[in-house]
Amino acid sequence: MKDGSWHREDQAGFAGPTPTFCHAPLVLDADELDGADVVVIGVPCDLATSYRPGTRFGPQAIRSADIVGPPAARAHPHRRIDPFEVMHIVDHGDVGVFPVRLESIHKELRTAADATLGTGAVPAVLGGDHSVTLPVLEALAERHGTDGYAVIHLDAHADVELDIDEVDHGNPFTKAIERGALLPKNHLVAGVRGYWPYTPGELDHWAGHGMRIVLMQELVERGLMAVLDELIDTARELAPLTYLSIDIDVVDPAFAPGTGTPEAGGISSRELLTAAGRISSELDLCGFDLVEVNPMVDPAGITALAGHATVLEVLAGMAARRRKRT
Amino acid sequence: MKDGSWHREDQAGFAGPTPTFCHAPLVLDADELDGADVVVIGVPCDLATSYRPGTRFGPQAIRSADIVGPPAARAHPHRRIDPFEVMHIVDHGDVGVFPVRLESIHKELRTAADATLGTGAVPAVLGGDHSVTLPVLEALAERHGTDGYAVIHLDAHADVELDIDEVDHGNPFTKAIERGALLPKNHLVAGVRGYWPYTPGELDHWAGHGMRIVLMQELVERGLMAVLDELIDTARELAPLTYLSIDIDVVDPAFAPGTGTPEAGGISSRELLTAAGRISSELDLCGFDLVEVNPMVDPAGITALAGHATVLEVLAGMAARRRKRT
Amino acid sequence: MKDGSWHREDQAGFAGPTPTFCHAPLVLDADELDGADVVVIGVPCDLATSYRPGTRFGPQAIRSADIVGPPAARAHPHRRIDPFEVMHIVDHGDVGVFPVRLESIHKELRTAADATLGTGAVPAVLGGDHSVTLPVLEALAERHGTDGYAVIHLDAHADVELDIDEVDHGNPFTKAIERGALLPKNHLVAGVRGYWPYTPGELDHWAGHGMRIVLMQELVERGLMAVLDELIDTARELAPLTYLSIDIDVVDPAFAPGTGTPEAGGISSRELLTAAGRISSELDLCGFDLVEVNPMVDPAGITALAGHATVLEVLAGMAARRRKRT
Amino acid sequence: MKDGSWHREDQAGFAGPTPTFCHAPLVLDADELDGADVVVIGVPCDLATSYRPGTRFGPQAIRSADIVGPPAARAHPHRRIDPFEVMHIVDHGDVGVFPVRLESIHKELRTAADATLGTGAVPAVLGGDHSVTLPVLEALAERHGTDGYAVIHLDAHADVELDIDEVDHGNPFTKAIERGALLPKNHLVAGVRGYWPYTPGELDHWAGHGMRIVLMQELVERGLMAVLDELIDTARELAPLTYLSIDIDVVDPAFAPGTGTPEAGGISSRELLTAAGRISSELDLCGFDLVEVNPMVDPAGITALAGHATVLEVLAGMAARRRKRT
Amino acid sequence: MKDGSWHREDQAGFAGPTPTFCHAPLVLDADELDGADVVVIGVPCDLATSYRPGTRFGPQAIRSADIVGPPAARAHPHRRIDPFEVMHIVDHGDVGVFPVRLESIHKELRTAADATLGTGAVPAVLGGDHSVTLPVLEALAERHGTDGYAVIHLDAHADVELDIDEVDHGNPFTKAIERGALLPKNHLVAGVRGYWPYTPGELDHWAGHGMRIVLMQELVERGLMAVLDELIDTARELAPLTYLSIDIDVVDPAFAPGTGTPEAGGISSRELLTAAGRISSELDLCGFDLVEVNPMVDPAGITALAGHATVLEVLAGMAARRRKRT
Amino acid sequence: MKDGSWHREDQAGFAGPTPTFCHAPLVLDADELDGADVVVIGVPCDLATSYRPGTRFGPQAIRSADIVGPPAARAHPHRRIDPFEVMHIVDHGDVGVFPVRLESIHKELRTAADATLGTGAVPAVLGGDHSVTLPVLEALAERHGTDGYAVIHLDAHADVELDIDEVDHGNPFTKAIERGALLPKNHLVAGVRGYWPYTPGELDHWAGHGMRIVLMQELVERGLMAVLDELIDTARELAPLTYLSIDIDVVDPAFAPGTGTPEAGGISSRELLTAAGRISSELDLCGFDLVEVNPMVDPAGITALAGHATVLEVLAGMAARRRKRT
Repeated sequence: MKDGSWHREDQAGFAGPTPTFCHAPLVLDADELDGADVVVIGVPCDLATSYRPGTRFGPQAIRSADIVGPPAARAHPHRRIDPFEVMHIVDHGDVGVFPVRLESIHKELRTAADATLGTGAVPAVLGGDHSVTLPVLEALAERHGTDGYAVIHLDAHADVELDIDEVDHGNPFTKAIERGALLPKNHLVAGVRGYWPYTPGELDHWAGHGMRIVLMQELVERGLMAVLDELIDTARELAPLTYLSIDIDVVDPAFAPGTGTPEAGGISSRELLTAAGRISSELDLCGFDLVEVNPMVDPAGITALAGHATVLEVLAGMAARRRKRT
Repeated sequence: MKDGSWHREDQAGFAGPTPTFCHAPLVLDADELDGADVVVIGVPCDLATSYRPGTRFGPQAIRSADIVGPPAARAHPHRRIDPFEVMHIVDHGDVGVFPVRLESIHKELRTAADATLGTGAVPAVLGGDHSVTLPVLEALAERHGTDGYAVIHLDAHADVELDIDEVDHGNPFTKAIERGALLPKNHLVAGVRGYWPYTPGELDHWAGHGMRIVLMQELVERGLMAVLDELIDTARELAPLTYLSIDIDVVDPAFAPGTGTPEAGGISSRELLTAAGRISSELDLCGFDLVEVNPMVDPAGITALAGHATVLEVLAGMAARRRKRT
Repeated sequence: MKDGSWHREDQAGFAGPTPTFCHAPLVLDADELDGADVVVIGVPCDLATSYRPGTRFGPQAIRSADIVGPPAARAHPHRRIDPFEVMHIVDHGDVGVFPVRLESIHKELRTAADATLGTGAVPAVLGGDHSVTLPVLEALAERHGTDGYAVIHLDAHADVELDIDEVDHGNPFTKAIERGALLPKNHLVAGVRGYWPYTPGELDHWAGHGMRIVLMQELVERGLMAVLDELIDTARELAPLTYLSIDIDVVDPAFAPGTGTPEAGGISSRELLTAAGRISSELDLCGFDLVEVNPMVDPAGITALAGHATVLEVLAGMAARRRKRT
Repeated sequence: MKDGSWHREDQAGFAGPTPTFCHAPLVLDADELDGADVVVIGVPCDLATSYRPGTRFGPQAIRSADIVGPPAARAHPHRRIDPFEVMHIVDHGDVGVFPVRLESIHKELRTAADATLGTGAVPAVLGGDHSVTLPVLEALAERHGTDGYAVIHLDAHADVELDIDEVDHGNPFTKAIERGALLPKNHLVAGVRGYWPYTPGELDHWAGHGMRIVLMQELVERGLMAVLDELIDTARELAPLTYLSIDIDVVDPAFAPGTGTPEAGGISSRELLTAAGRISSELDLCGFDLVEVNPMVDPAGITALAGHATVLEVLAGMAARRRKRT
Repeated sequence: MKDGSWHREDQAGFAGPTPTFCHAPLVLDADELDGADVVVIGVPCDLATSYRPGTRFGPQAIRSADIVGPPAARAHPHRRIDPFEVMHIVDHGDVGVFPVRLESIHKELRTAADATLGTGAVPAVLGGDHSVTLPVLEALAERHGTDGYAVIHLDAHADVELDIDEVDHGNPFTKAIERGALLPKNHLVAGVRGYWPYTPGELDHWAGHGMRIVLMQELVERGLMAVLDELIDTARELAPLTYLSIDIDVVDPAFAPGTGTPEAGGISSRELLTAAGRISSELDLCGFDLVEVNPMVDPAGITALAGHATVLEVLAGMAARRRKRT
Repeated sequence: MKDGSWHREDQAGFAGPTPTFCHAPLVLDADELDGADVVVIGVPCDLATSYRPGTRFGPQAIRSADIVGPPAARAHPHRRIDPFEVMHIVDHGDVGVFPVRLESIHKELRTAADATLGTGAVPAVLGGDHSVTLPVLEALAERHGTDGYAVIHLDAHADVELDIDEVDHGNPFTKAIERGALLPKNHLVAGVRGYWPYTPGELDHWAGHGMRIVLMQELVERGLMAVLDELIDTARELAPLTYLSIDIDVVDPAFAPGTGTPEAGGISSRELLTAAGRISSELDLCGFDLVEVNPMVDPAGITALAGHATVLEVLAGMAARRRKRT
């Protein structure tokens, strides 16, 4: 780059195949992840989806929703920081094979998450349905201990269904708790609305275990900033590290039609960007995921765009926090 | 249900045919409506549509936009009330036959509305274009008298066209007034914008008759809550009962692309939910409709979802009001 | 009906909910299937899909692709026979629950198929992905013996993958053979093309076991009628009964875009109708399925329409055969 | 034009508004139609549609499906004739006003058709649903007498429903017969298939009155050319003039998804072009229509394209016949 | 009009071809523009688009997004002013020919803009990609001098790329500056976000030249009204006239999916209407454009609707300002 | 592979990014093309498109329309040959950068084609609009001489416009002839129909120069096989090598809606596969292209699928010819 500006010659293949997130280096071999700060992992999975399937194409859609092109340089307009400059971000490709059994996908994702954490890097998981958060939480618990991390979870659904034997995209946090990988009190959820999978009894159950569930109604009444203040303060008090799990359906279907279980009445994309930026720059993230982007019901591609922008906002926030420390 | 949670075995046929709203009991025979509190009536009609037709598929789309499945139980996350528990809600199926003549559809709807009101139940009408409100208002006037009810009407269009002989979806309230079924002063409209079917002369005409029309501009300037305060207070003063008529195009096309005459610059889905919840819980509804959902221009299905959620919000508000009284 | 013509008053609710196939009676209780000749069973399943998911909405889409409306009367224009008059056709609704595990769906389908066969009726299965054929074949084998039935299978893929442990939509016939429910020599496939899941070694393997696989190229060269002659003659010689399995992807993607693994270069809808009519009227069917209709990639709904018409063509052929016998 | 080739300077506004068919002169005033050979009349009507509405946008879609641009010159590649050179073709715009009542649209169309016939020109009607053929037939009968013209009608449906009081798009020919504007024996239909609006009794009824209905099955068995031979010979014997009515649903939904009541198993676009070319060049047309193009269910616009090409094929055939005579 | 109301007889051809913006008079001949106050110019151009092409169909889509129909009368509901009554608004059709070379389209647009300005009228340009602003700015500079006008520019991108030789839709303002047609300090941009075409160095460069770029983040923090206050005050101080350039992607993709380079996190349609209304009524506009509407990725047509409404809002604002002065 | 069958473990990342055609090795560096037999080159270009743009996304769409997944092994079902086994096929990625100027894209493509031919390999070009054929023909002429190769060109348009100065997608063959890179008599076109860009004078002009243009009408009358016999025999006589240029719009819009200038009445996908297979196996190809796939108007992705299958059919034909020779 000359004078900080953007040059044509750097952009060969703009409209061509997009093998990696923002054209970051592709590192398929887990043994070569050393030195990475962030490892992007795609999880093309929708086997645990209850309504409209298609999130198996989510990672591909998020990576393709890049209107800039190479090189891997994305200076944040407001922060004036380029996360690809501040951090070594690599794309580990997709885990998961032929989409027939959930267990095998989860197992592969666990392996990838373990490898990532083993090198001291932060996993950035592109779903896939929300069940994919489960193996990541298990990896985190093994690495940092259940006391070592809290979860801030932005979602239209709390995903803490009770009394269901099998893992699905409505109970990854329940299962993580049952498997000893997550403390209920460390689970902070915001944006919850709609009628599934939720009952007042379920709410009472988890409240009794210390879980904090911010309904959309409360978020509207108190305002996003106040809720973020609370979530961030609480997470900081609960544990040294925070995992951020973003279900794209936390935003309204107007902004994210391309998702499996949309719920009317959510926040805006702008608000999600604000939340993602604050959380990632005010807390120490040990990982994050962006799940439930479903391009099969996203005719103009705006959901993938919102997802892509959100991931970049998290990365920029992380970069800002790192730069500040140094 | 065990422990208030949601069980798999209750959900057989989840992705299968959805014959009724939220899997409520289907009661096709008008003679069997006794005991119902709310009667859902579908009106697959678009013969009075001026622009993009397709609302004949509206009732089907709203019923199908149910991501939960059986049983008919929908506990409201904030109110912690399940309207299907508090009230006996039945689905009366669709009125209207082969869609060739508006008059026959209106006649059948009138019959269904009369039967519903005759049992003391509240009609919940799923449109169909907005012309379907006319026969319901006529039934209400016969039942409660024109002094007996006010109308709160959320819409991008006031639907009070002048000087048109025939009924269309731009003049159901004009026709109701002309037929002596509605007092102009009892008609409270909010959200009006755009250029159709509207002229300043039309506004003056109706203002002269005491009608209250809140333009979108006023709504933005004063804020939704202030406008709701006014509408609810006024309705309460005007009559003991309120009919709520919601044209989905009151929300912005971003939130409801699937409608026949969309107008840029509307409220959000969240704001519609707020309005629906307040009106239904703070006033005594004698009926309501949700009209103009058009799945033929709703590629990701988000309009039907917003419509479905809005109907549930009204039901939850009604349930909250009933429980409070008891 | 008066004079055999079609009356408006029979068509109430035309555009309303479509709970059953062609408005046939809904018989959810397996104990009430007695007396049925044909039992329609929906299987909203896509857990075994390798590419584009969405066939969980297939049964719903096929049932809805009915442009006629009630009553359940469909006189075939050429045969001049109404299958709903000649046979007692009922709709058993959908098997399968929350779509998380393939095994449970298959188990329920097996139960429904057993119940159907137990009453002497013929199952008409609406998929769902092609894995759903497996439990039906198992039920048939138990009922009629493996010598008792042959399979005519129209498909772009032979669905006889080797060396895969788990059931998916590429190996239901392999699994049926492995489980002793189908004789390889009784499996007659036509329309095969494309590159998946297929290798020359796989072809040799199955040819060695007597399986007949008609590639699309052969079908084009010899002509559809000659191939149908061969298949029908062979099936008649092999066993007293025939099961017809139709994967909608046997037709070209132009005619059936809405399917998970489309392959260019297939037959036309007209040719599929011809094949369905000949096979069902020239052989004794012990069951049939129409699978892989995926409305999530069927923007104009033509795939569901083709599927619906094909099922009707099979029913009309069966009715013609029955009438002929009597 | 220089050297018969096509010049850029003639193509200003290529992608701009398309006010007329192939940029033919717009003649809105009926008094100025004198001298025209062909008058294009759009009828944006879908009030008589039984299933998927939207043909009100048909005329607009057909006119816009023009990938060539101005000037109004379209040399037929095979016939090497430009119909716009041989005939004076004008576009009369659209009849019909606010789409609320069928009667008013039909009345206006009748006026336009009368004006067209009064100047000795041929009406070329762009539908709209098939009900629009009725007023044109009435105009023809008044002008030429019922003995003066036969109808060749290509359609998936015969549109001769019985026992229905009101005009809809399933009975324009019935109504024309009832009103004395069409002789049943002069009505030749081909391509009929599906289950609506049709019963064997209906077929018998009309056969008894001499109507010729070629089912799709017969068309396939005998071949298109043989059927065209018969239709053309018969029409020539029946009357000096022929009206050609083409419902785009005569072609398979693969070729024309954008229509209200699609039926699987139709002819191809190529076959429709062949039929249109033969009929228009081998008979003396007194008018023609192309109806039931519905852009609301035509996501890639191919139905409008097929409709546009068919109209051009008829015009080229007519031009060839005129040139031959001179 | 009688009594100020809206009459059916004025609406012939409602659903028919829409040759002009709001059915304004079509004036193709530049010599006949005298007397016009506003000249609508369509520019069907997408040759400078970096990502999703299709804005060549933008002018057609904006004109067609008219749900009212003739006559050209659009009384603004709040201002109670009809811009078509206050001003003589004509539609000059589309400039640009066969879309092969950007230069020829720009040249034709320059000619049309010169002709418009030469008669004292205001050009209202319907894009097309944002490169079309360049020739308009050049015409303005020639007419009014670079000191004579400021630009208020609402956009997700500042469109001031550096170091690119050729004109594209990311550098029209750079090129205008380089060509001496625009002073950097007179360029006021708001709504900027995303990662393209932008670098901190680029920001610094232009800030050093006095350009004001309001990032979306600042707009959110300060509020739209405060930013508008600043922009309007500044523009008034900078020059006697203001040019308003609106890239539809300034609004969030939820409200405007149909655009080439959408960026998550924008303003709402309502906010754009507010901005358009304030700027046009509080400043003296010497021209405006609405660019980047792309109907090829606008499945429900809401982007074209928002664009159409925005143009009307500007016209109503201008009309209000003119009336106030008189 | 074990026993010739297809194994799961080979399919990691199935639904993930598809960087290359059929997962062939990616060879971006032209210096490393040695040893290749076939070099796939993507050309994301639509700057020369006259109607619906979007072919810039064509190469990406064709590569993604792969329902099989890794490894790069595609045994042809009928020929029982795997082209990836017989030939060394590599993917050279995309040429062309930021899509602003046609000349630069063509220049890069020329470089890639030269490099490919320089190593003795065959270029397999994935368009992009049809203008991309021009630089390939120029490279061929330089390499083999104009006497050294003939062109078989399957297309709805002959692409031999006259009297246009600039290169567009309607005149690549004209320009190649003008530049001395193609002999008119060596240009064999089939499938031509429609009205653009074509005039009888143009036909006469080229016929006078010995060009063979088979109109669709002739193709239908004589049958595809007879026309292929003629084209193949003629090509063999004309030159030792043949270049095959396939515009996907040669097939009917039903089979290929996703293209810029569709023309009703084309061949079927099956027929295109037959043609592609015969030409590639009966002649010595020196290169081929598949152009005009436009995913922006391909809602169900079937055009990309047909394009992908066609490329594979050519590769299989080439492999069969090579194996036969050895």
